[in-house]
Amino acid sequence: MIDDVIELAKALINRRSVTPEDAGCQTLMADILAPLGFNIETLVFEDTTNMWARKGNQGPVFCFAGHTDVVPTGPEEQWQFPPFEATEHDGMLYGRGAADMKGSLAAMLVATHHFVTKHPDHKGSIAFLITSDEEGPFINGTTRVIDTLEARDEKITWCVVGEPSSTATVGDIVKNGRRGSLTGDVTFKGIQGHVAYPHLAENPVHLTAPAISELATEVWDEGNAYFPPTSFQISNVHAGTGAGNVIPGEMAMCFNFRYSTEVTNQALIDRVTHIFDKHKLKYDIKWTFNGLPFLTDEGQLVEATKRAISSVTGNEPVLSTAGGTSDGRFIAPTGAEVIELGPVNATIHKIDECVNMGDLNKLALMYERILENLLT
Amino acid sequence: MIDDVIELAKALINRRSVTPEDAGCQTLMADILAPLGFNIETLVFEDTTNMWARKGNQGPVFCFAGHTDVVPTGPEEQWQFPPFEATEHDGMLYGRGAADMKGSLAAMLVATHHFVTKHPDHKGSIAFLITSDEEGPFINGTTRVIDTLEARDEKITWCVVGEPSSTATVGDIVKNGRRGSLTGDVTFKGIQGHVAYPHLAENPVHLTAPAISELATEVWDEGNAYFPPTSFQISNVHAGTGAGNVIPGEMAMCFNFRYSTEVTNQALIDRVTHIFDKHKLKYDIKWTFNGLPFLTDEGQLVEATKRAISSVTGNEPVLSTAGGTSDGRFIAPTGAEVIELGPVNATIHKIDECVNMGDLNKLALMYERILENLLT
Ligand SMILES: [Zn+2]
Ligand SMILES: [Zn+2]
Repeated sequence: MIDDVIELAKALINRRSVTPEDAGCQTLMADILAPLGFNIETLVFEDTTNMWARKGNQGPVFCFAGHTDVVPTGPEEQWQFPPFEATEHDGMLYGRGAADMKGSLAAMLVATHHFVTKHPDHKGSIAFLITSDEEGPFINGTTRVIDTLEARDEKITWCVVGEPSSTATVGDIVKNGRRGSLTGDVTFKGIQGHVAYPHLAENPVHLTAPAISELATEVWDEGNAYFPPTSFQISNVHAGTGAGNVIPGEMAMCFNFRYSTEVTNQALIDRVTHIFDKHKLKYDIKWTFNGLPFLTDEGQLVEATKRAISSVTGNEPVLSTAGGTSDGRFIAPTGAEVIELGPVNATIHKIDECVNMGDLNKLALMYERILENLLT
Repeated sequence: MIDDVIELAKALINRRSVTPEDAGCQTLMADILAPLGFNIETLVFEDTTNMWARKGNQGPVFCFAGHTDVVPTGPEEQWQFPPFEATEHDGMLYGRGAADMKGSLAAMLVATHHFVTKHPDHKGSIAFLITSDEEGPFINGTTRVIDTLEARDEKITWCVVGEPSSTATVGDIVKNGRRGSLTGDVTFKGIQGHVAYPHLAENPVHLTAPAISELATEVWDEGNAYFPPTSFQISNVHAGTGAGNVIPGEMAMCFNFRYSTEVTNQALIDRVTHIFDKHKLKYDIKWTFNGLPFLTDEGQLVEATKRAISSVTGNEPVLSTAGGTSDGRFIAPTGAEVIELGPVNATIHKIDECVNMGDLNKLALMYERILENLLT
């Protein structure tokens, strides 16, 4: 099995590791890695199981990062095949986590096995940073493992995250960064009253409209070669008691920035505050930092990845920073080069999640070539 | 008792007529009116009891209008005196409905008794239009009695509604009209999406902000001698699922106009629609007509009322159209002159509702003088 990506993927999918459960996935991985010379550390933080496995004591450190947890299945009876009984059908492997990201974990294991067998005296170190809480609140997962490593000054040089980055065929897109995410929860203050006596009230829905209009049309930046322009979106707005004759005393609003490396958290906060203050609004606001943007520019890791992919598919990947956040945001701030490379993401988090089995075998080969390009 | 405003008010207050209950109040009134020569019609529509009492077959028809129902008490233990056990204290009469408007009903009865006794051969007719659903949804109350009268072509010439119109002392303010009320419930349509992919979504909170801003600052009219300018207020706005990473697909908004006789329902609808359409919004809207504005200009009723009040207090009342709607809106469209005259409204709908007993006696005298001014 240790040589068979599909069998390994099946064994992982069949473990019912709905976030934050690991359900034995990391033990399965450790049982493969330990005989190859990996030192296994299991780091349990509250409900989350994490594994830091490392072979070698020298730098540079190449790290595969990923997660064993999966999102819930939704109504299981709507699945074509049982979500935790991996099933081959028409060249695809079906099951929850097939694409996000147990297929990638299987490919990492096979790539590592092949590479270590062929190059027992490779330079540097190989590591696995695996968590069971990527799909959850990501409080006790990668971020705490990184804290542990940082505390003992253990550094990752290059990191490949197995998130499903591809759109049509494996390796067509590599994520070399992610936008930052910043959330604001604001309560605008007015004065409640009766609609028949508007002069005694201050309607926060009226007072905020010009500011919202301005926020919605503001150009925050132009983006850059790697990032689309920073975007602002209001996700929730609520005012009023339900009664049609009461002027609301407050309005609650939640908004989110997805931002490029052209702006900073603080610059966005200052600009929003300036707009609110310019319109003389009264408000309380709570800011939540969901992750700084990161970018891995052309360099050794991107180069090695591009070469690995074209040697397998004949095509160069497109670099992209689009999409949601990933655990890469916790790893990149340590100074590591981080990219994400994984299978096609069309079915992730959906009913009938599946992955092309040919793609998984190609992915294992890509990972192996990246190791060769960097550690031999 | 038939001669004692305070005893009559107490007898009415002690009947627990929480809307739409009448709890025998109208029977008590009928038992006083019938011996005076009134023909009593009880008109029950679903949960509502109404009374149309009329003395005389000729025009002009003078009508007292009012309601026997009261709003709920709220926590009874917070009342200084039990809300349905009318209590005299320090010159005030306490109890639910003391000011709104069982005190007025008592004053009407005493005024009518005095007037009919002194002027058995008065001209025209005297009527009472009483409902038990003024504080409720006003579907089965005054509006249906008016429908009944209109169907048989029975007209009211002058109508005094007993709503508590006064602010500091009885008769300081007379309402000679009310603003119209028009409500819009609108759902703006966008396209739901993920905040990380804003180009695939259309955020209704963003798209509507300029239109809301425009509505909030629009001058709808300047009002006129009797009406303040038309006012627009948004009472409710809701968008978003609660999730911080989802762009809402819809936004629901409720707004209300209180409008003067300078504009019409249709003009307001057209102007709002124009603003929405100018901003290219997609929406469904439901309009609710809560009442047309009405105005009783200087004329026989206003004249008679002014003279009656100054003969009692020495002061001329101020005419006003401010405040919420009243059942006058259902009576005025038939062509009747309508004014509202009642006690001080400071405690209505509140804990410890009360009315000045001296004011109630003055009110009875004012009502009697109005009858004299018009029907002798
Ligand atoms: Zn994932
Ligand atoms: Zn009332």
